[in-house]
Amino acid sequence: MKAEIIAVGSELLTPFRLDTNSLFLTSELNQVGLRVAHKSVVGDTPDEMRSSFEHALERADVIVSSGGLGPTDDDRTRQTVADLLGRKLYRDEEVLRSIHERFRRFGRAMPEINERQAMVIEGATVLKNPRGTAPGLWLEARGHIIVLLPGVPQELRALMEIEVKPRLLKLGIPERLYTRELRISGIFESDVEQRVSSLYAQYPDTETTILAAPTGIQLHPRLWSDNPAKAEATLDELVKRMSLALGEHLVSTRGESLEQVVAQLLTENRATIAVAESCTGGLLAERLTSLAGSSAYFVGGVVCYSNELKTSMVGVPAELIESKGAVSSEVALALAAGIRKRTGATLGLGVTGIAGPSGATPEKPVGLVHISIADEHGPRETPIQLPGDRERIRQFSAQRALNLVRRYYLFPTLGRA
Amino acid sequence: MKAEIIAVGSELLTPFRLDTNSLFLTSELNQVGLRVAHKSVVGDTPDEMRSSFEHALERADVIVSSGGLGPTDDDRTRQTVADLLGRKLYRDEEVLRSIHERFRRFGRAMPEINERQAMVIEGATVLKNPRGTAPGLWLEARGHIIVLLPGVPQELRALMEIEVKPRLLKLGIPERLYTRELRISGIFESDVEQRVSSLYAQYPDTETTILAAPTGIQLHPRLWSDNPAKAEATLDELVKRMSLALGEHLVSTRGESLEQVVAQLLTENRATIAVAESCTGGLLAERLTSLAGSSAYFVGGVVCYSNELKTSMVGVPAELIESKGAVSSEVALALAAGIRKRTGATLGLGVTGIAGPSGATPEKPVGLVHISIADEHGPRETPIQLPGDRERIRQFSAQRALNLVRRYYLFPTLGRA
Repeated sequence: MKAEIIAVGSELLTPFRLDTNSLFLTSELNQVGLRVAHKSVVGDTPDEMRSSFEHALERADVIVSSGGLGPTDDDRTRQTVADLLGRKLYRDEEVLRSIHERFRRFGRAMPEINERQAMVIEGATVLKNPRGTAPGLWLEARGHIIVLLPGVPQELRALMEIEVKPRLLKLGIPERLYTRELRISGIFESDVEQRVSSLYAQYPDTETTILAAPTGIQLHPRLWSDNPAKAEATLDELVKRMSLALGEHLVSTRGESLEQVVAQLLTENRATIAVAESCTGGLLAERLTSLAGSSAYFVGGVVCYSNELKTSMVGVPAELIESKGAVSSEVALALAAGIRKRTGATLGLGVTGIAGPSGATPEKPVGLVHISIADEHGPRETPIQLPGDRERIRQFSAQRALNLVRRYYLFPTLGRA
Repeated sequence: MKAEIIAVGSELLTPFRLDTNSLFLTSELNQVGLRVAHKSVVGDTPDEMRSSFEHALERADVIVSSGGLGPTDDDRTRQTVADLLGRKLYRDEEVLRSIHERFRRFGRAMPEINERQAMVIEGATVLKNPRGTAPGLWLEARGHIIVLLPGVPQELRALMEIEVKPRLLKLGIPERLYTRELRISGIFESDVEQRVSSLYAQYPDTETTILAAPTGIQLHPRLWSDNPAKAEATLDELVKRMSLALGEHLVSTRGESLEQVVAQLLTENRATIAVAESCTGGLLAERLTSLAGSSAYFVGGVVCYSNELKTSMVGVPAELIESKGAVSSEVALALAAGIRKRTGATLGLGVTGIAGPSGATPEKPVGLVHISIADEHGPRETPIQLPGDRERIRQFSAQRALNLVRRYYLFPTLGRA
């Protein structure tokens, strides 16, 4: 069965905003067996909204809309859908009471305009909104299901989970979407594609989306099936073969982030870590501290942008910077060893490189980055050449530095980031 | 005149990907006087694609599609649109030659499947793709303009700018969209709304979108007009009145980021800065170093997550941390003064707070953050209580710390972040 998502709101037709609700809605719809065949965005002009709903009725079994249920003149989803279906709107006294009640709870009187949110389409089931004043509406008409939800993300999510999904589950669609999420680090998107693409043809029932984010490459294999055991087995087998093809670059197979994997490795090894970073400018520390509880393993770091700070705070000899340059293997090694010594952490990480756009020389181009790790046996280091602009080089560098910690524990004999 | 954007690609109907091309396309279409009335996303199923194009032909003057022009079996935009218009596809020998040529330039032979990209719809104008093998197509049919573009963002952008926009300008649409972008920091979205919303009714021709990002609130007033001088004057007046209403919280009126404003203030004052941050975990340093050329004013920073590091690297007395707690006015002051002294920077910034989810006490709840700034006259500090989860608290804290630098220069008698 097919679903269609309609996002209502003129601000979603500006160059500044995207309809992100549809990602969540898609995931929920897929889980009850509905495939999303179309998504659309429309402003709050009644004619244009009517056209969107009309076309959706021609081609989808289930239509879910977001937005246009607020209290102002611009909120026209209720009226438009009522008109399209030839039904009347009436004021639902119970809904009105609950809106009054909600305002009272926050110590305010209900503004008159909010009365509009108590208008309900004839024959609709009211879906109580636990997070706001606009209820959702569930309609069955001409063999279709139409669900109207508010656009505020937390209200839409709560209504979808509590009210809509259980009702859709009752449709009893035997098919479901089964998914996996693989994370990969240390190679580029095209390398990932090359390693796994021959598998696609061998698993023709599956589809795989590849996604390149600053926090690593993701592979999302997925499969529609009415046979859960067979679907899971097929995905397990595909994931296993993908894992073999990806080798040491595979970070996780159930969507765990590189930060999570590194946190787990440090915790299991009762290790702490400290960082001395130059070109990443704090990004490496930021990622290491992004998880709750990171103070258990992250001691701290120095963002040593100036050469003076590399010397005064991390103990890199000034002569070394002078003779080898701030971006060099030698300085990277001294950063990792120095921060480890100064902080007493189990491991020290060092990053120095040229993020650009300026600062490059013929021998040291933009994108050249040295990443180092030090333990009680001393530091080791690997230079990499990264593509992209300043922002991407900084992001890739932080990613590779985190990946070096993962590799340090899992592949101790391999040096590369 | 109305435009409609259709994004083609089954991966855009998964929970993992959004059609971001449409933001760029919208901005370009608005600049030539076209309003975007609908956007839609469709997979690569011919029936469903046909339905999207059919409906767009009913309601839009100009249709721009992205995607589905690649060399594989899944790339069906050309065939679908040809069928819908009742036109034939033919192989364009010149296009084929230029695809061969492109492969040759990269030292490869053209794979046979790429021949498909030389297929052109009868009557179409071929738009040469400077960044890839798939040319764009420009069609005029039934009083509509249909533009087919590849989905790869850099190819789509180049084709839109070089080939499509000049042709659309020839339509001579007298109306244009005029816009401004205001950045605001130090207050929340609802406060911004409250301060400026009364202006909306006084400028009924304008529409304003408000956008809350971790990097501050943005206001985007805009206005369709065929009178450039009048439009600019109206927006100037509205922006002036918004600026008065926003007062000291206004960061910029032409879209400059807080980082850019802070960089300019530091540069104008020939000042340098260093940071000692705890709960922001490197994010503050990361933002200060995000701009090219930041090494001119950013000396460096310490991410002092552990109390030991606050003492050893920033010189915060251990007794002070012991008696007042790591999250306290006193420690914040000592962080700013200490990092300034250790680094020799003109200004020192200190941040300490409880990002959560753990670490809170009845007196010190999650979201309590102390932000401090020190100059040659000593440090000053302001406590703030921030809402949201760990990630938002970290982001807000970094934002408020940057804002404190702006306020230090522009409103020296005011202390708040």
